[in-house]
Amino acid sequence: MSKKVDFPVSDARRYLEPGPVVLISSRWKGSDNIMTLGWHSILEFTPSLWGAMISSGNHSHRMIRESGECVVNLPTADMVDIVSLIGNCDGESTDKFEEFGLTKTASAEVGAPGIAQCHASFECKLYDDTLVDSRNFFIFEIVKADVAERPAHPETLHYIGGGSFVTAGKVVPQKSLFTKVT
Amino acid sequence: MSKKVDFPVSDARRYLEPGPVVLISSRWKGSDNIMTLGWHSILEFTPSLWGAMISSGNHSHRMIRESGECVVNLPTADMVDIVSLIGNCDGESTDKFEEFGLTKTASAEVGAPGIAQCHASFECKLYDDTLVDSRNFFIFEIVKADVAERPAHPETLHYIGGGSFVTAGKVVPQKSLFTKVT
Repeated sequence: MSKKVDFPVSDARRYLEPGPVVLISSRWKGSDNIMTLGWHSILEFTPSLWGAMISSGNHSHRMIRESGECVVNLPTADMVDIVSLIGNCDGESTDKFEEFGLTKTASAEVGAPGIAQCHASFECKLYDDTLVDSRNFFIFEIVKADVAERPAHPETLHYIGGGSFVTAGKVVPQKSLFTKVT
Repeated sequence: MSKKVDFPVSDARRYLEPGPVVLISSRWKGSDNIMTLGWHSILEFTPSLWGAMISSGNHSHRMIRESGECVVNLPTADMVDIVSLIGNCDGESTDKFEEFGLTKTASAEVGAPGIAQCHASFECKLYDDTLVDSRNFFIFEIVKADVAERPAHPETLHYIGGGSFVTAGKVVPQKSLFTKVT
């Protein structure tokens, strides 16, 4: 567990835009939960907006909808077993923090806890619920970000369906071909 | 250029869920354009829905909005120079197919052409424009998919900002830990 430091929320895309599987932690009515999620996208730099399709079949859906908050945690590739298992058990009957030996961290801006073992945590508040009823699509504002100081580019997990992931992490610098770098 | 074959639209997540940079091709009023895009998410299996934040500052935004169609093309890691350059020139003054030596393929369901050099092409029709005005967020239905037969898991590009990409492609099978595989 590398020490995390404050990170600019407008740069959250560095970790979320590549499309990793993330672990979403939530708190509602005194209980905490975690779910895995792969259907998400950065939507804006400032405010720092991030959208996610959270199926209503997940226990977390109601917890996040009612509390209006969650934390997006970025697991690294070495956590692949935990990530798989979290996605294959039910938060209504399982305390996933306890079951998988994960450590809660106190958040600064939301009630939901972060996950200490993850590389980064992004605290989120529900910002636009226009598509929640029709498509289970939540738009959040990332209000606080904490990222481990090392490594600069962790190996991450990207789900491809069928119980398989691909990993990403090898950096290809292309700045010389960019006229304006965003 | 590997031969592409018809692919089930409900399985588009295999290529798009990992979060690669994609090349969006569009056709409107007799001209064709290409843009790079990294802000997108799978939203549903059936119908096969895919959402993308297409900034109104891009020439493609209006072309896609007016035509209601586009093709999502998946470039492989060896195309990193072309991907970078396409993202750094303007479609209003540049014919990007000609400039970068890309070959158009005829689409089956939409007017916009695909890009032969890409690993896969997903033909899209605008399905839900609720968030187009407010957030430039388009929801498309993928109506036709064509994927190269080999390799099964191409190396893909994932943008992290600052002119750099990370690559993904190494498969980690975890099916034994999944109780229900989706």
